[in-house]
Amino acid sequence: MRATVLHAPNDIRLDEVADPQLLDDSDAIVRVVASCVCGSDLWSYRGINEFKEPRRIGHEFVGIVEQVGAGVATLKEGDFVIAPFAFSDNTCALCVRGVHTSCVQGGYWSGEDHQGRPVDGGQGELVRAPLADGTLVATQEQPSQEMVAQLLTLSDVFPTGHHAAVSAGVTTGSTVAVVGDGAVGLSAVLAAKRLGAARIVAMSRHEDRQQLARDFGADEVVAERGKDGAAAVREILDGIGADCVLECVGTTESMKQAMLSTRPGGRVGYVGVPHDVELNVPAMFSSNVSLAGGVAPARNYIEELLPDVLSGEVSPGRVFDLRVPLDQVADAYRVMDERTAIKSMLTI
Amino acid sequence: MRATVLHAPNDIRLDEVADPQLLDDSDAIVRVVASCVCGSDLWSYRGINEFKEPRRIGHEFVGIVEQVGAGVATLKEGDFVIAPFAFSDNTCALCVRGVHTSCVQGGYWSGEDHQGRPVDGGQGELVRAPLADGTLVATQEQPSQEMVAQLLTLSDVFPTGHHAAVSAGVTTGSTVAVVGDGAVGLSAVLAAKRLGAARIVAMSRHEDRQQLARDFGADEVVAERGKDGAAAVREILDGIGADCVLECVGTTESMKQAMLSTRPGGRVGYVGVPHDVELNVPAMFSSNVSLAGGVAPARNYIEELLPDVLSGEVSPGRVFDLRVPLDQVADAYRVMDERTAIKSMLTI
Repeated sequence: MRATVLHAPNDIRLDEVADPQLLDDSDAIVRVVASCVCGSDLWSYRGINEFKEPRRIGHEFVGIVEQVGAGVATLKEGDFVIAPFAFSDNTCALCVRGVHTSCVQGGYWSGEDHQGRPVDGGQGELVRAPLADGTLVATQEQPSQEMVAQLLTLSDVFPTGHHAAVSAGVTTGSTVAVVGDGAVGLSAVLAAKRLGAARIVAMSRHEDRQQLARDFGADEVVAERGKDGAAAVREILDGIGADCVLECVGTTESMKQAMLSTRPGGRVGYVGVPHDVELNVPAMFSSNVSLAGGVAPARNYIEELLPDVLSGEVSPGRVFDLRVPLDQVADAYRVMDERTAIKSMLTI
Repeated sequence: MRATVLHAPNDIRLDEVADPQLLDDSDAIVRVVASCVCGSDLWSYRGINEFKEPRRIGHEFVGIVEQVGAGVATLKEGDFVIAPFAFSDNTCALCVRGVHTSCVQGGYWSGEDHQGRPVDGGQGELVRAPLADGTLVATQEQPSQEMVAQLLTLSDVFPTGHHAAVSAGVTTGSTVAVVGDGAVGLSAVLAAKRLGAARIVAMSRHEDRQQLARDFGADEVVAERGKDGAAAVREILDGIGADCVLECVGTTESMKQAMLSTRPGGRVGYVGVPHDVELNVPAMFSSNVSLAGGVAPARNYIEELLPDVLSGEVSPGRVFDLRVPLDQVADAYRVMDERTAIKSMLTI
């Protein structure tokens, strides 16, 4: 089969690799229908996250079950499935508490399974899915081609935006500011709106992203960054700042901007993978600004979000502004790296 | 009048100072009935928090209203009142949201009021209370002498323990670990029990404090500290750690211990004033452990906690294991500094 391999920074290729095989009774083999590139993939692509050997990549995909192990009970050949970006048993003490990303048997695509055996990346034609019953969520019907893009967002980007909103405590009537206008930040706007936010301020300097933020539910857009941006947010929101700030970048600057945009007693929900983020703990303490979030337990949210996606109540797939076949994966990365696309979708 | 003055590290005296006067229509003058020494007072007493000139001190007190300004509507001469450790108007946008410690007109005892005029400390005979209607909470009746000690805890230590529990999200059925066996830590045990925690692990090496922790509701006591202590907590709590960890110390070591005691997806509620606390953000991110809390908005909690204190449902005043008259204030500090007393109460 063909799968994406990152050979070196900026050198990404579609290579011929061995087809995956069932290794455990709980495994399934999934034929990928669509995958996509994540902002977090760019950390490796840019060489900021170091790696020594060529490595498989990709962790967001939907597909059709091609084969199931003898122990798989809830899935059958031909099912259309959504794969969250981490695999998990959905039964351990931590999955039961909704933290599937900390599953005692779980792990990440293009990493290793619980027994230390390699697991395929999602940007390829076939994937061995460990703990298939726990990991994969099947739809009742085969989706239309347009719906495939919507469902693909349930792999990562939409639940991650949702996790930012949930972690920040967004509820009916909340005032919200969103830091970051990438696909996750835009999804966070949509998630906050869905959860009943009364007023949403999106922070973005790019016109196309500002427009999508507005379409997703942002009431106001602030183009300034840093202290000036935070001051603008405070001015818009009663002079005190937002109840809930969704930090969707993961840098020291973006976190600072998020903290300064939060009202005393408010909460920052963060989902941007932190890179050298430092926190001003005394300032957080004196203002009672709290910090919640982390790597999104997407599996925990898919069942909640799926009906609204299927009904068209929300259209998170609008974050894909480039759709290319898998063999153009290098272009898919390049445009995201150059920020000329918000998010690239790969059709297989 | 006589008031406590910190002249230099370890040099604390009861001095003769000028009686306070009403300065604003919203002021009241309170004759202090009882005050106490806070763990946070020790940071100055030990010279760790630096100060240049002799300064008034003390921020926990109860007393009798002696005089009210023309604009005070809800209090009258003779009322018994509880003073939270920060004064606040109870009406601004932040007080309305329960963050009285960030009140736009508020401030702290022995600091300055909104107009920059000095405010008395609580360890003295008389105090000018700014924003009296918003700040002071009057009881309906005059309390008994024993009840005075219980009510005095509503000034700071009990609401602060409660804030740790609320911030950590303690609710019916939560598993809880408490880091710190000072008066705040012990109060946090009591608060967690009151909020319905299913299982509480107190971390303490001192037998008398262990006993009080058990009396306040701790099911288990862990004497080990650091990594070993956290491992013991995890072993007791389903092998994964506590849903809610209440950090009541404020050092890098105690915060680390708290973080390691928290299960993935759990939350640390912190109320120990942070001193050089550093956080491992990537570890928090990957395990979805969140951090909430800060300086406790005591004023926000007094009305909720007062009925349970008055009914004897809870007896937070048990944290006072030394009661001395105000002129022995130096002894009151010394025994807390030496940790031979949990908390010193001063009767005036």
